[in-house]
Formats: sequence, C-alpha cells, structure tokens
Amino acid sequence: MYRTNTCGELTIKDAGKDITLCGWIQKSRDLGGMTFVDLRDRYGITQLVFNMETDGALCETARKLGREFVIQAKGTVRERSNKNLKIPTGEIEIEVNELNILNRSEIPPFTIEEETDGGEELRMKYRYLDLRRNSVKNNIILRHRVSQEVRKYMDSIGFIEVETPVLIKSTPEGARDFVVPSRMQPGTFYALPQSPQTLKQLLMVSGFDRYFQIVKCFRDEDLRADRQPEFTQIDCEMSFVERDDILDTFEGLAKYLFRQIKGIEFSEPFLKLPFNESMENYGTDKPDLRFGMKFTDLTAVTLGHDFAPFDTSEYIGGICAEGCSEYTRKQVDELTEFVKRPQVGAKGLFYIRYGKDGLLKSSFDKFFSQEDLDKLAVEINAKQGDLILILAGNKKKTLTALSELRLEMGNRLGLRTKDKFVPLWVVDFPLFEWDEETKRFYAMHHPFTSPKPEDVHLMEKDPGKVRANAYDLVINGIEIGGGSVRIHDTTLQKLMFKVLGFTDEEANEQFGFLLNAFRYGAPPHGGIAFGFDRWVAMFGGQDSIRDFIAFPKNNSGRDVMLDTPSQISDKQLDELQLKINPK
Amino acid sequence: MYRTNTCGELTIKDAGKDITLCGWIQKSRDLGGMTFVDLRDRYGITQLVFNMETDGALCETARKLGREFVIQAKGTVRERSNKNLKIPTGEIEIEVNELNILNRSEIPPFTIEEETDGGEELRMKYRYLDLRRNSVKNNIILRHRVSQEVRKYMDSIGFIEVETPVLIKSTPEGARDFVVPSRMQPGTFYALPQSPQTLKQLLMVSGFDRYFQIVKCFRDEDLRADRQPEFTQIDCEMSFVERDDILDTFEGLAKYLFRQIKGIEFSEPFLKLPFNESMENYGTDKPDLRFGMKFTDLTAVTLGHDFAPFDTSEYIGGICAEGCSEYTRKQVDELTEFVKRPQVGAKGLFYIRYGKDGLLKSSFDKFFSQEDLDKLAVEINAKQGDLILILAGNKKKTLTALSELRLEMGNRLGLRTKDKFVPLWVVDFPLFEWDEETKRFYAMHHPFTSPKPEDVHLMEKDPGKVRANAYDLVINGIEIGGGSVRIHDTTLQKLMFKVLGFTDEEANEQFGFLLNAFRYGAPPHGGIAFGFDRWVAMFGGQDSIRDFIAFPKNNSGRDVMLDTPSQISDKQLDELQLKINPK
Repeated sequence: MYRTNTCGELTIKDAGKDITLCGWIQKSRDLGGMTFVDLRDRYGITQLVFNMETDGALCETARKLGREFVIQAKGTVRERSNKNLKIPTGEIEIEVNELNILNRSEIPPFTIEEETDGGEELRMKYRYLDLRRNSVKNNIILRHRVSQEVRKYMDSIGFIEVETPVLIKSTPEGARDFVVPSRMQPGTFYALPQSPQTLKQLLMVSGFDRYFQIVKCFRDEDLRADRQPEFTQIDCEMSFVERDDILDTFEGLAKYLFRQIKGIEFSEPFLKLPFNESMENYGTDKPDLRFGMKFTDLTAVTLGHDFAPFDTSEYIGGICAEGCSEYTRKQVDELTEFVKRPQVGAKGLFYIRYGKDGLLKSSFDKFFSQEDLDKLAVEINAKQGDLILILAGNKKKTLTALSELRLEMGNRLGLRTKDKFVPLWVVDFPLFEWDEETKRFYAMHHPFTSPKPEDVHLMEKDPGKVRANAYDLVINGIEIGGGSVRIHDTTLQKLMFKVLGFTDEEANEQFGFLLNAFRYGAPPHGGIAFGFDRWVAMFGGQDSIRDFIAFPKNNSGRDVMLDTPSQISDKQLDELQLKINPK
Repeated sequence: MYRTNTCGELTIKDAGKDITLCGWIQKSRDLGGMTFVDLRDRYGITQLVFNMETDGALCETARKLGREFVIQAKGTVRERSNKNLKIPTGEIEIEVNELNILNRSEIPPFTIEEETDGGEELRMKYRYLDLRRNSVKNNIILRHRVSQEVRKYMDSIGFIEVETPVLIKSTPEGARDFVVPSRMQPGTFYALPQSPQTLKQLLMVSGFDRYFQIVKCFRDEDLRADRQPEFTQIDCEMSFVERDDILDTFEGLAKYLFRQIKGIEFSEPFLKLPFNESMENYGTDKPDLRFGMKFTDLTAVTLGHDFAPFDTSEYIGGICAEGCSEYTRKQVDELTEFVKRPQVGAKGLFYIRYGKDGLLKSSFDKFFSQEDLDKLAVEINAKQGDLILILAGNKKKTLTALSELRLEMGNRLGLRTKDKFVPLWVVDFPLFEWDEETKRFYAMHHPFTSPKPEDVHLMEKDPGKVRANAYDLVINGIEIGGGSVRIHDTTLQKLMFKVLGFTDEEANEQFGFLLNAFRYGAPPHGGIAFGFDRWVAMFGGQDSIRDFIAFPKNNSGRDVMLDTPSQISDKQLDELQLKINPK
C-alpha cells in the first residue's frame, strides 16, 4: 500500500499519528517560511504543511509541486492553528517529513475546481479530468449508490436479475436500431436492443415471475437536448399480477429509494391520476404536482359575451396565480411574450386582476361586467390579490400552452424547488393513437399492452376511446418510468393486431418468436421500465442526465474524448464484406 | 394478486388454510375417482387433488388439463396420506374447489423435465421452455445470487461501480472488434468493447481509486467450444496499490464468494505460484491443484543409457500415479493412445511399474538395470504399488503433453471432484512473447502491463527474460481471472513501446487518449478482470458456461431462438450508407 489513510478521514482524534497519504495537488501556497499544500483524493482534501526552517530541501521540493501532480506524503497529524470548519479534515494538517512525486502533470486545460473555467466542449474532451471535479465525481458515486440500493431492494422482494443479450435481432420496424455486422456470417447483422421488452416477456413465459435488470439500451435517433444513444434502464416484469400489484411493488421501490438516498419518507400512497384528468387539469400527461394551479375550464362562463377571441374558441381555460394581482405591466407583457413563443403557441394572453381592494380588472373589460368577472373569479376559485391568466383556442393546443404557462408561473413563484418531490402515477392512457397522415391507429405503447378489461368491447367499435392498462411514474413533471399489463390471451392479441391493421404475416414477421412462445402457456404478466439516468439526475437535483454518466456522448452522438464514431480500416470492412456507399 | 402463495412454500404447518396458487401443469395422473396434478412455478411443485365424488365437473376439467397449461387453483391445504419427503411441499396437497385456466399450451417440443428428451438444438430454439427446467432455472438464479454477492462485497470495501460506454472506438489492432455503423454520421463506426481496459485506467486517472463493474464485453472471433461473442466480466481497478494489495483484495472477494455461495471457508492464503515453476511442475499456467502428481524432471537420470528415445530428447519428465502399478496392458495402451492424440502430441509413453513386491518393471528394461530404475523411482518419489509415467522430447511440447496426461490420470483416479476447490495465484508471467513469424516481441497481456521492478534492467538487453507484474487467479485448472499492475511512468511506457517496436505515431494512433490522459497525473494503479460466466459455471459445478446464460449463442455465434444475425432491410442499409459487398 502506498498510503495508510485517505485525504478525507483524518481528524483531530488522529493528532500525533504518523501517516502516509497519496493524492493530487489541489493547490499550494507559500507563506514566508511555510508552504501549504491541499492534497486531494476521492475522499476529500487534507492540508500538508512544509516548514522551511525544519527541512529547507523538502520545502523547496514542495514549492515546485504543480497542480495535479500525484504525490505520496509521509508525516504526522497535527492540530491546525487556523481551522477550516467547512471540511471534515479542517481541524488538522500533516507536518510532512517525506515527499515522493509519483507522477507529474502538465498544466490541465481547465481548472479542477467546482467553478471551473472549462467550457462544456473542453470538459468533455478531457472528461477524465472533469471527473476529478467534486460535483461530477459525486454524481457518479450517487449513481453507484442508487444502483446498489435498487438491486438490494429488488433482491429483497424476490426479483431475479437476468442479463438479456445485447446482440439481438433487428425488426422491420427497428428504424432506430443500431445494427452490428457479423464477421462470421458476412452480410448479416445483429441489432442492439432499444429495450429488452420482448426478452423479459419471454422470461415470464419461462416462469421467472419476478425479473429485473439494470441494463444498457440503445437508440440511434436524432438526439434531443438531453438524450443519449446509449442509456440505462431499470427494467422489470412480474407474473400473476394485476395492475395495482405492479404499482404497489414499484411504489415500494420508489419509496425505498427516496428514504435511502434522500432521507424522504412518503407515508401516503402515491396519487393515481387518470390520463384524461391529467390532460384536463394540467394539460400534460406528466404534471408537476409540487404546486397546484389546476386548470379551470372557463368555456361555459366566457362564451356569449360578444368577445370574438372567446366566442371563436373551442376551449377557454384559466389558472389562478395566487398573490400576483400586482404584477406590473412589464411582467404581464413578459407572460404574453412567453405564451406567444412558437414552442408554447398561444395567440395571446387574457387576464383578470383581482385587486386587494376587491375590484376585478380584466384585459377584456369592455365585454365583461364586474358581475361577469366575479362569476369567473368564483369559478376559478380566485381571491383578492390573485391574478387569473386565461388562454383560449383549439382545445388540444390551448391545454398544452396553458401547461407551459402553469410551469412558467410555478418557476416565477418559486414553487418548483429541487428539494421537494411529488411522485404520482398517471394511469389509463389511451391504448391507440390516431395518425392523421397514415389514417390508421398505432399502439401508443406497444402492441402487447392490454386494454382495460371494461373497455375491450370498444376495441373495434371505437378504438380511440379504449383505455390501456398502462401507467407512468411521474415525479416533479418528469416521466421517470412507464409500463403496462401485457396481453397474454391469444384471442385478445389477434384483435389488437386487427385494430392495428397487421396481417398475420406481418405480426409473425415482427413478433414471431414472442407469439410462438405465447403458444406454450404464457402467464398473466406486466411490468415497467425506469429511466435510470433520469432518476439519478433527479436525486442529484439536476435536470441534465449528462453529468451522471461517466463518459457521455454529445448531442451528435459523439464521444469527443474517444473521438468516435470514426472510420475503420479497409481490412475491417473487407472482412465484414461491407462497402461504404455515400449518397 | 392472482395467488396467495407460491408452489414452493406450503407445508404441514399450513394445513387447513384456504389458499390460491398459480403455475404450470407439470403432470397429472388419474387414479380412479381422484385426479392428482403437479403444479409448478419458480419456487417448487405442489400437488393438487381433485375428487370425482365431491365435485365431478371440476374433476373432469382437471382431467383435461394438458402439460404446461397455466392455471389458477383455489382450495384448502390438507395433509397428504402418501407423503413425498424429497420435496419441501411433499407432506401436503391442495384440495381444489375452484380452477381457472389462465392460458392453454400446445404440446411442448420436448419434455420439461430434468432428463429431457430435447436435444441441444431444439432446447436452444425454444430456450424459453428450456429455462423452465429446474437445472437451467437454478443456474440463472445462482448467477443472480453471485452477482448480488459480488456487488455487496465490492461496495462494502469502497469500490464504486461505474458504467463505462458500450459504444466506443475501434482501434487499428481491433481485428476482433464488433463495429456499429453510425446513422447520424454515415461511413463512421463505433466499436463494442472487448473489455473496458482503457476506460477503467482513465477512471484511475480521474481519481476513482476503487472501481468495479459487472459488464458485458464483446469479441467477434471464431468461437471455440465454450466461448460466447458476448460475455460478462467482473472488471476491477485500484490506485495507490502494489501487486500484493491487489491480490489480497481479490483473494478477499474470492473467499467471500466461496463462503456465501458454496459454504466453503478458506482460512489459508492462496498459493502464489510463479509462472516458471507452474510450467516446470505442471506444464501449464493454469494447474489443477486438486491433486498433486507434480512433474519430476528425469532428464539428468535418464540420459546416457543408449536408449535413443531418451538420448535424443531435450527433456524427459515423469509423473507418479499412485497405486496404479497393476494397470492392465489395456489401460496402459489407452494411456499411450491418449498421449499420441494430435491434441496431446507425444510420440509415445514410457512407464515403470513399481510392483507391490518391490520389483521395478519398465517399458525400457533392456537399457536400464534394476538399480537404474530404482534411482528413477527415488527421484520421482515413487513407492511400491505406483506407476511411473514418462514422456520425452522437445521440452515445451513434452511439458504440455505431460500436463494433459496428468489431468487424464487425475480424472481416472477420481481426483478432480466438482465439490473440491483449490484456488491459487499464478504470478510473474513473462512480459513479452516472441513471435517466430513476425520476428518481434508482443506484449503477453497488453502494452500497459508493468514489468517487475527488478527486471526493468533487462527490458532492452533480454526482453524474453523480463517478468511482468501480472497474475491470474486459477481454480481447479481454470483461469477465472487475470490482471496486472499497470505502467504509470512515462519513461517506462516509452521503453515498453520501444521494445514492442512501436513508433511514437503508432503508439499515439492506438492509445492516444490514454497516453494523453497519463500526462495529467496518473496514479500508480492495477487491476484484474474475472470471467463472470466461467466463475458462475464453476460454482454451479459445470464445465460449460452456456447454461448459465439466459439466452446464449451457439458455436457459430447465432441466437437460434431470435434467429440472428439476420439480414436487414435495404432502407436500413441506405440510411447507414452501406452496401453489402460479397467477396
């Protein structure tokens, strides 16, 4: 061993001990006859001190240590005169009597500090240095802790982690599959899994009634801001269960993780919010319930006042911003600008100020009497001092815009704090989505998602009305996981394919081995998959997943550190019997 | 919940309880007025009983249940009259009062029994059914348990599991890399990692001084009997350590796993056997030490007797097979045939019988007096009743052949039992291997493996003599893991590349980002990687890893269940800007 201790553990209790530490030079300061060096390792920082008087040569060596040099220091633990109570080791320092330089370092391309001078690009290129920064390092350690706790919990309730293959088969619909050419069978390809969905269903057929896996998945798609071509899921499946058995099980996991990782106790069951209600009340299927500001449908009470913007609208909805009646003209203009952004898409913003004096003033005063406004205020449950914000137009678009406005107001009012967590289940999603372009229904989730039993009779008559036995776990407006009860009944499965317009051949081509497996006794089953990167980022209090991945890729799917994807040799291409064929 | 209990837990204590079980029909028997059904799930088998007299209709339904039907049965736990003490539930049965068929099953292509009638090919095609068989299921559960225990132990000693990327960069030497064409940057490729070797070294540069990962690795190579194109490693690396710190740490892991999984306690430190000694004594770098039968070099005592086969040999070595002096002519002939097989490669077998009467009789009696033979017997430490087996020839080949003969004798004498485990470290491997064809040295492990400090002076003078600071964990003749202390010193690294005949450019092209990283303060570090599939198979008492992988590939790298690798669509190829270019 090069060291007796780490840089994060020595305290006043160790005073007098002879110890050896190893680590990186965080910084050093010369103060006349003394040189102070902050030595850093994974565990913390310990101050080393060198005295010109007691050992001039050693002190000279110490003075020449550059940032990020790797050293071994031997010495004695002493109480500090000038204590730093912000760090656990701040009451002691090491009086060094031997110093060995284990490795030198060039000047790093950016400072290894919390507030670094390195830009995103540079930090990604030198990710191994970025990982030395406390915040990034702690994110990676947090990720480890969460994965350990997930496994501990799942194991404790009888789930078996099974590794499913990474080299699987591409499906005709696998437009976003990464493929892997085979050298042993040139001209053929494996595909990397977008998820182990079908494999975990096979495991249910096998009788592994409680399966989970923390597993890499892959999707070759244009990357939006915070997606990665390879990402990690907590993938789970259970047999002989109904929907609420599954929700209870994974609510248990969520509560356990919040307890272990964040010290937060959820004693109440999570809210189960039907999709339709979520859309009506929050304009989204992933509502942030850290705050209220539920929508009020004002259509009935606003129509028929000869106010064209309302009278020509399918839907008029409002939210009540508590205590905002005194918003300035500028603030209201900002909100108007906000809702008119193309990403939000409203045509304009209407409002009613409910003055502290009890007077109601609106942006459409000419058309609404004080009494009319009062009716609106009652409808939306506003009180003196509130500001009512109203959007009008096509229902679907207006709900979406109102949702954005609600979140914006939540931000402005400081209602979306990082240390508050409100998890809920969104349930009863539609089973099908209608596609205007191709004029057909698509499975919203996947074709093995089962309808709610009470809606099966609508499958052929009115597919758009059929609710799926599907659910999402949403926390603070972010979808953390989603799943469904699967179809295990052959007749129902055939009906499903019929509604989706699949012929038997097409169904077989795409899902043949799963349909085959189902012929040999498939149990009732269902499951869920959680976005692990996303969940860890949420625990870490950050929006971006990137800094919770040791070596992430950028928005173009590049690893700038490894400089990949990159060209391969002609020899490799030849062996694979492939040719690059630029368009 | 579809069930109140599993099929593995009800015992005599539960008699009288009303319960609900779910599972698969293992078999059913009609005995006059009674029908008995064995119901199976992941946890065990419980007997259901249906009585024609009490409920004729229900009994009729039960009689029609086919093998592998999925049912739900409600009933009462009763003590059995005819107890089966071989299974935990064998003292009870369920008197069924309600039966629901959850799913039907076609007749499976092979019987779901321990002794199945299904051949390898069929079982692989229907792997989801094969996984229902107890032995295969238990292997997968064992794998889960081992992975849980590995993580528990590594976490307990401060190791952080870090997920390294699966989409990395192909290297010019990456002849066996699987590559992954990028759709977003057509004409370029990622590669799948053969191991996270360089990435874990980067993590050491980052300061994660204790890293591990249970991780999929990939190798596109002609598959020998028991290799898989995707396999799982326990990958580990540590900083600020010397060789014995690493060995102690992972000896701790091995001992922990043996204790937890097998209930075996190893109180003594594992033997550390230098490579050279292993070769001299056992003719292999992975000796099976469940038994002795160490080689004796008989060259000195056998030369000069005018016996040409000896006198023309570089090396004459023997083993002593205890108690085998009475081997029949046939047995000796079999051994002779064995050593002459091309895989073993000896020209012939020589032997000396040390009779129980004290007489020595050899296959080369004409050239050796009784006294000469006696000298040999003393040399090899034989006693009355033993059989001395001797091979002669080129040293390297003879050692290898003698190793095979030793293992064969171990098998014949029942010395290689599955329930005995003898782990050891093989250490001090050569740093370089000389390649006759290209007339140059290659790194035996990889170019970052450090030489033993005391051998550095030989690096240029006599590379073949330099020992590496490398080690393997060998158990029962199988290499379970291997690793090394890495080079962290730039000067030594340059010397290494020089001996390997790399120019600076070549070194940079292949290992650029790692060499770059090393410029910013690389700590002394080293590590190890274990073959997880192999280790689990060993714990499971089997030689083949295949049945410890849920969905394995066959010897041609095919997944016959998924039917992959397979062709992809022209659209997919177009998007990747690739063309199949058959030779």
